[in-house]
Amino acid sequence: MEIDPAEVDGSLYRTLSGSVVPRPIAWVSTTSEDGVDNLAPFSFFTVAAIDPPILVFAPVDGPDGLKDTPRNVRDTGELVVNIVTDDTVEAMNQTAATLPADESEFDQSGASRAESTRVSPPRVAESPIAFECELYDLQDVGSSSLILAEVVYVHVADAVTTDSKVDVEKLDAVGRMAGSWYASTEDRFSLERPP
Amino acid sequence: MEIDPAEVDGSLYRTLSGSVVPRPIAWVSTTSEDGVDNLAPFSFFTVAAIDPPILVFAPVDGPDGLKDTPRNVRDTGELVVNIVTDDTVEAMNQTAATLPADESEFDQSGASRAESTRVSPPRVAESPIAFECELYDLQDVGSSSLILAEVVYVHVADAVTTDSKVDVEKLDAVGRMAGSWYASTEDRFSLERPP
Repeated sequence: MEIDPAEVDGSLYRTLSGSVVPRPIAWVSTTSEDGVDNLAPFSFFTVAAIDPPILVFAPVDGPDGLKDTPRNVRDTGELVVNIVTDDTVEAMNQTAATLPADESEFDQSGASRAESTRVSPPRVAESPIAFECELYDLQDVGSSSLILAEVVYVHVADAVTTDSKVDVEKLDAVGRMAGSWYASTEDRFSLERPP
Repeated sequence: MEIDPAEVDGSLYRTLSGSVVPRPIAWVSTTSEDGVDNLAPFSFFTVAAIDPPILVFAPVDGPDGLKDTPRNVRDTGELVVNIVTDDTVEAMNQTAATLPADESEFDQSGASRAESTRVSPPRVAESPIAFECELYDLQDVGSSSLILAEVVYVHVADAVTTDSKVDVEKLDAVGRMAGSWYASTEDRFSLERPP
């Protein structure tokens, strides 16, 4: 099958989201200017830089423009990126529901608020890793917002570390596939990098 | 464990690469101005936008500045993002080796060249999905290059499609974890998205 994007009827969403897999999930908490705590998952997400530490994610615009998360990030400059694991994937999925902007996903998903250290939005108490972030840059790229977020504080539960390092074997993070599919990270293998 | 990035001795590389998992792998082919075909894997990689279709990846600068891939992309404006699966993960790992700029990873990894349709760099013949791309934007973000690449042509092997759509069950893509660890995507589960 060959695809010329200029001749596609509709979008390349299904092809892109089915090919760029498995994707890590940024479960992003923000607080609106009106004080409503928002929580939503985004899987167009990765690391942008190490020094300074910067995460990047790309919410696709909704039918009415910016979603709650990019709007809150733009308005307040603060967010928390929580990591999703086997234990929280059901609650994460609940926060993918579309709620009115004045209702909080924290109150309807089973995710609990924990106080953050450097930023105002709460982090997810049940997430073993949370990155408190300040907005580094927000760009419009086509039909998406590209949000670059600088990490200013990190919480890592001792239960997912070995020798003070994050241990992927204990973390059991969950990856996003296409459609309604997810992948566990329990089936792992190791390859020694060549010299 | 709590981490204040301002007080870390060393970088947050291990914490970021161990937490933002599983990561899809962009196996990127480029051609230098001297005509050498380069091939290298990058796992700080995701979708940036759907319309137009834009991929993004973030090579971390090497000790001597830009690596071959971002240099070639900057010089030529063209690249191919090949998707890595169970069948190609060993060859992909071979291309992580550091070669002199005048030697091609294609000649030393077991990956074969296939002609591209719209761009000059070859795609990987063994990859079931390849995105031919033109440079959309290249930004310096901290210690990384952030490369946004617009998809101009897509190759999808019929063996990984069902009803003309990419089928993650047939693709068997491979995800990157921390260190030398990878995750298969064969252990999947489905969650219905709430209304």
